[in-house]
Amino acid sequence: MFELGVVYRNIARAERDVADQLARYGSATVHEAMGRVGLLKPCMRPIYPGAQVSGTAVTVLLQPGDNWMMHVVAEQIQPGDIVVAAVTAECTDGFFGDLLATSFQARGARALVIDAGVRDVRTLQDMGFPVWSRAISAKGTIKATLGSVNIPVVCAGMLVTPGDVIVADDDGIVCVPRAQAAATLQAAAKRESLEGEKRAKLASGVLGLDMYQMREPLAKAGLRYID
Amino acid sequence: MFELGVVYRNIARAERDVADQLARYGSATVHEAMGRVGLLKPCMRPIYPGAQVSGTAVTVLLQPGDNWMMHVVAEQIQPGDIVVAAVTAECTDGFFGDLLATSFQARGARALVIDAGVRDVRTLQDMGFPVWSRAISAKGTIKATLGSVNIPVVCAGMLVTPGDVIVADDDGIVCVPRAQAAATLQAAAKRESLEGEKRAKLASGVLGLDMYQMREPLAKAGLRYID
Amino acid sequence: MFELGVVYRNIARAERDVADQLARYGSATVHEAMGRVGLLKPCMRPIYPGAQVSGTAVTVLLQPGDNWMMHVVAEQIQPGDIVVAAVTAECTDGFFGDLLATSFQARGARALVIDAGVRDVRTLQDMGFPVWSRAISAKGTIKATLGSVNIPVVCAGMLVTPGDVIVADDDGIVCVPRAQAAATLQAAAKRESLEGEKRAKLASGVLGLDMYQMREPLAKAGLRYID
Amino acid sequence: MFELGVVYRNIARAERDVADQLARYGSATVHEAMGRVGLLKPCMRPIYPGAQVSGTAVTVLLQPGDNWMMHVVAEQIQPGDIVVAAVTAECTDGFFGDLLATSFQARGARALVIDAGVRDVRTLQDMGFPVWSRAISAKGTIKATLGSVNIPVVCAGMLVTPGDVIVADDDGIVCVPRAQAAATLQAAAKRESLEGEKRAKLASGVLGLDMYQMREPLAKAGLRYID
Amino acid sequence: MFELGVVYRNIARAERDVADQLARYGSATVHEAMGRVGLLKPCMRPIYPGAQVSGTAVTVLLQPGDNWMMHVVAEQIQPGDIVVAAVTAECTDGFFGDLLATSFQARGARALVIDAGVRDVRTLQDMGFPVWSRAISAKGTIKATLGSVNIPVVCAGMLVTPGDVIVADDDGIVCVPRAQAAATLQAAAKRESLEGEKRAKLASGVLGLDMYQMREPLAKAGLRYID
Amino acid sequence: MFELGVVYRNIARAERDVADQLARYGSATVHEAMGRVGLLKPCMRPIYPGAQVSGTAVTVLLQPGDNWMMHVVAEQIQPGDIVVAAVTAECTDGFFGDLLATSFQARGARALVIDAGVRDVRTLQDMGFPVWSRAISAKGTIKATLGSVNIPVVCAGMLVTPGDVIVADDDGIVCVPRAQAAATLQAAAKRESLEGEKRAKLASGVLGLDMYQMREPLAKAGLRYID
Repeated sequence: MFELGVVYRNIARAERDVADQLARYGSATVHEAMGRVGLLKPCMRPIYPGAQVSGTAVTVLLQPGDNWMMHVVAEQIQPGDIVVAAVTAECTDGFFGDLLATSFQARGARALVIDAGVRDVRTLQDMGFPVWSRAISAKGTIKATLGSVNIPVVCAGMLVTPGDVIVADDDGIVCVPRAQAAATLQAAAKRESLEGEKRAKLASGVLGLDMYQMREPLAKAGLRYID
Repeated sequence: MFELGVVYRNIARAERDVADQLARYGSATVHEAMGRVGLLKPCMRPIYPGAQVSGTAVTVLLQPGDNWMMHVVAEQIQPGDIVVAAVTAECTDGFFGDLLATSFQARGARALVIDAGVRDVRTLQDMGFPVWSRAISAKGTIKATLGSVNIPVVCAGMLVTPGDVIVADDDGIVCVPRAQAAATLQAAAKRESLEGEKRAKLASGVLGLDMYQMREPLAKAGLRYID
Repeated sequence: MFELGVVYRNIARAERDVADQLARYGSATVHEAMGRVGLLKPCMRPIYPGAQVSGTAVTVLLQPGDNWMMHVVAEQIQPGDIVVAAVTAECTDGFFGDLLATSFQARGARALVIDAGVRDVRTLQDMGFPVWSRAISAKGTIKATLGSVNIPVVCAGMLVTPGDVIVADDDGIVCVPRAQAAATLQAAAKRESLEGEKRAKLASGVLGLDMYQMREPLAKAGLRYID
Repeated sequence: MFELGVVYRNIARAERDVADQLARYGSATVHEAMGRVGLLKPCMRPIYPGAQVSGTAVTVLLQPGDNWMMHVVAEQIQPGDIVVAAVTAECTDGFFGDLLATSFQARGARALVIDAGVRDVRTLQDMGFPVWSRAISAKGTIKATLGSVNIPVVCAGMLVTPGDVIVADDDGIVCVPRAQAAATLQAAAKRESLEGEKRAKLASGVLGLDMYQMREPLAKAGLRYID
Repeated sequence: MFELGVVYRNIARAERDVADQLARYGSATVHEAMGRVGLLKPCMRPIYPGAQVSGTAVTVLLQPGDNWMMHVVAEQIQPGDIVVAAVTAECTDGFFGDLLATSFQARGARALVIDAGVRDVRTLQDMGFPVWSRAISAKGTIKATLGSVNIPVVCAGMLVTPGDVIVADDDGIVCVPRAQAAATLQAAAKRESLEGEKRAKLASGVLGLDMYQMREPLAKAGLRYID
Repeated sequence: MFELGVVYRNIARAERDVADQLARYGSATVHEAMGRVGLLKPCMRPIYPGAQVSGTAVTVLLQPGDNWMMHVVAEQIQPGDIVVAAVTAECTDGFFGDLLATSFQARGARALVIDAGVRDVRTLQDMGFPVWSRAISAKGTIKATLGSVNIPVVCAGMLVTPGDVIVADDDGIVCVPRAQAAATLQAAAKRESLEGEKRAKLASGVLGLDMYQMREPLAKAGLRYID
């Protein structure tokens, strides 16, 4: 693990249909459906608002200030993939811009999640290529040192294994391990179906205290009301 | 103070009319009108741009990773209130999302100010429910430990007492103590009325150096011009 | 250097035409054209998206919490200038708002780059006066202590000498020393002219690996493909 | 509250004997004895290790970059006091050094807790005058703007009212409201008396799982052991 | 992976002898010997200087503000282990103090590495129980929510699998995967053996430029000397 | 300025005697003597307490993750120099360890000031080679990209020109421009000579309020005492 200088060409991707459907539920619901795990750190932010995507992870481990492996990973992209990029040390340089985005998009990538910086963000928004990153920086990178492609990586505090499903939106990014993708989709759908009814009740003025029957456990925990 | 497990049901709110009118002056002018105090820390940011509100504070003290008391505070909301949420330790979890917002909005709340994270931010924007927060995070919370409602809290470095007036916009958030609300409104209005004239002068090319008669005090302080 | 209490009235500005033309290439390209130096730190962000400007630097060194010198620098602005403001210690206060922006704009300033906070950001956006800053804060400042105008300053980690060219956009800010401005413009134009062709190739599915002939150096560096 | 330009000369201090005895229990035990509230943020660190103190709070609200009020608060110190200093905006300047420490020590102060920076830290250690601060900085301050003395302040996220008890050690700082000091002392003493026995058991190899009878609630919560 | 509510009792530990010997080389040399990977982030710091340890990892995944699983992991400790604790969200609370340290030490643990806070740090130093943590905080935790023991965890940005070797000293912490431990030990020993000779040469005034024969590659890269 | 790939061999150093004598006054006094400018940011901390040094700056500009130029700068060191290292982007890697320290020490360097990370900190302390840095990190670096030696650099927010005097201690680091070194030494000595008398007065209980005659200006500024 974390070996350098290797590219795994054959990875087992989560089922396409499952990976595609997870997008509609968003990161918060999917994270809850997994039992409240799987989120990348909230320092990761979308470079523009409104994108909501899901796809299968292809991963790349970069060296700080060096984006050589971004070109290597491009070749491993298949339609429906999301590239997940980690760096061996903290770095905010701009590893990715409009040229690489053009290439990624031509290969069928849906998004980039990168624990570092990106640039050309206005052009990326015009292209409709969403990126979640830790920073925006015009700082360029060199092409001198090997990393790896399609090994398990830690991105923004979360382990991402190639082929896992990534779900990302304005709230953040969640990684669904491939083996749990189908079950998570079911759980997310179920969770979502219950929300409409709840929303209607709450909108009508019913309190969560009553809807969720919290008054008794709150009293039991010792909550006191003072007039 | 900072007692846990209590809900104060009767709080003395600032006068409605005063609380409502402060919105128009915005956080910067109101903060100046108070003598340059009262601001929450600038790490608090709106989840979407453009909202400008004021209202009376109802407060809630949360435990990290636990949003149980958000349901308790919902019942204490009256139309025109703004909920101010503090946490007993630093935490960026998403304590608040679209369901709670639906409930808060149904109760008449105008906004949430929370020294932690929120989620469902795109839906919150669609609903027109403004939030100022330290973070955006899809991370969910549990419902296990008591905090308190309507006790004085420290939110983003500022003491907020229930019933105080909160003014929030893209520049930040200011807390106006209830006893100072009326005087602050007067001072803010006066300050604002002077700005139009100043703006016209400056737009015509008059320098602040001359308009504010700064040349003499600058020279006295020792400023030297070098050609 | 870093002397306090002085205003240099006569500075040698970069050639107007060169300063103006650099805007179109943006901060990333200009930084590359300079040999990958000159960027301010990425903590500096635009207060609203979409602005892309260039201009000649007039500089101001401020004391923390004190914006007196902003009025002094206003007088030194000439059309086509960008004001670059540094502070003698870290400070996020709002040193600049709509009144000063009105004055700066009337004097012909194109933008402000400030290693501190600003306020009235919604009005600044309405006015079309772009600002790049470290923070947004409603916190006001006093007018009590001297700084300097048009001395070399360090702003967000970069030395800026009065008369240098500043290029700023959504990716960040780059400072081009006056003596290098013409050569940098040429290099940026050349770099840009090559990008269109590359973009077309990448869009058609050609890989960077092949377009940049990276396969051999990657193999030489030891990259292994595993099926 | 947060009024500027005032010095309260007569404050009600917590009982001397209670304030003095709390030191021995340390910040962690006292915080637990209060019901797990009262701590200042962990960014506050001692400038040298090993000090453990308690005392009654005299408070001072400073303006950023301005330590004028430190001289004003010196006069209000009584033997057994701890000075608690807050600033109206974030600032890491060195507001306090060996001269002020000499004065504070001469007046009977036991320590300083300051939500900003200090300097002369080696001399302070030699003098045996402990300080807890957010930063160490050689940066000096001016004496130009009024703050206040002995008003309630928010220091590192916690409300401190003059006369409260401050307990500080290598783990952090806790503020015990005056009205709760006696009860907190009792609770802390009780808590401490139970720890010796527990420590002996744990040292002998007894597990917390058994000593605290956690196995059943863990199983009930669903914990599964896998061989 | 990242499943909650499970305790793996049988883990394959790296060979004891190899795990023990790695301590002597320190984190920097071991990290180099692995090919410059494996380090936890540098925000992890020792609570006191001078400790240098190695051991086999037992892991624990905690919930924010909840140290229940610390008691569960205690039972899984074997002599020579180092406990590695991760949290499902960022949290600086004090999850660990002198009582747990007594228990861990009684079970044979050599150290704790925790991506959160600890307390009782003076007592821990007196006990000679080293801890590497992100924070020091007196803030206590509750015991309410399940995490897991001996699953792979991400601690300070690095994946740690139970049974891996942890090497920690004043420079930081490195995780050596179990399968690479023996080879890493060999490489570290070899690296170390070369350093003595180099040190002697450098101490005698020989330049690294000559010792490493860098003059030619520097000239080739274009380095120019200007008199 | 900020040109890459050059080494200036002949720099004009501040007078040796002046550079040497500044150490005794420490960073705080020297910074005051300069008119309260010249400090590097307080995020720069000594790797061990107690060192207090001054010397003439030789500078090096590094690329992130690459310490090649550290070997180049070693050759330019003369006895009494302090190496000041800046990086073209933020980076916490360990650019410097015991081997380079051995070489630097052999050349007569007194200290290193580096806006990045260092390692082997325990050995550096044993060697008595003081370092001020932004981070401590075991992370190693490569040797692939050119920077420069003895060009003006921005280190931790301050411009340092080769030959300037650096003064560093536990309070921080100050850079004294060569041309101001002699005058600063005089001013520091004068300032220091006044402190002994002040200290004695304050120790005897005289208040700063009286010693500095602050009561009248405070009253004039509006300070009110409330009993």
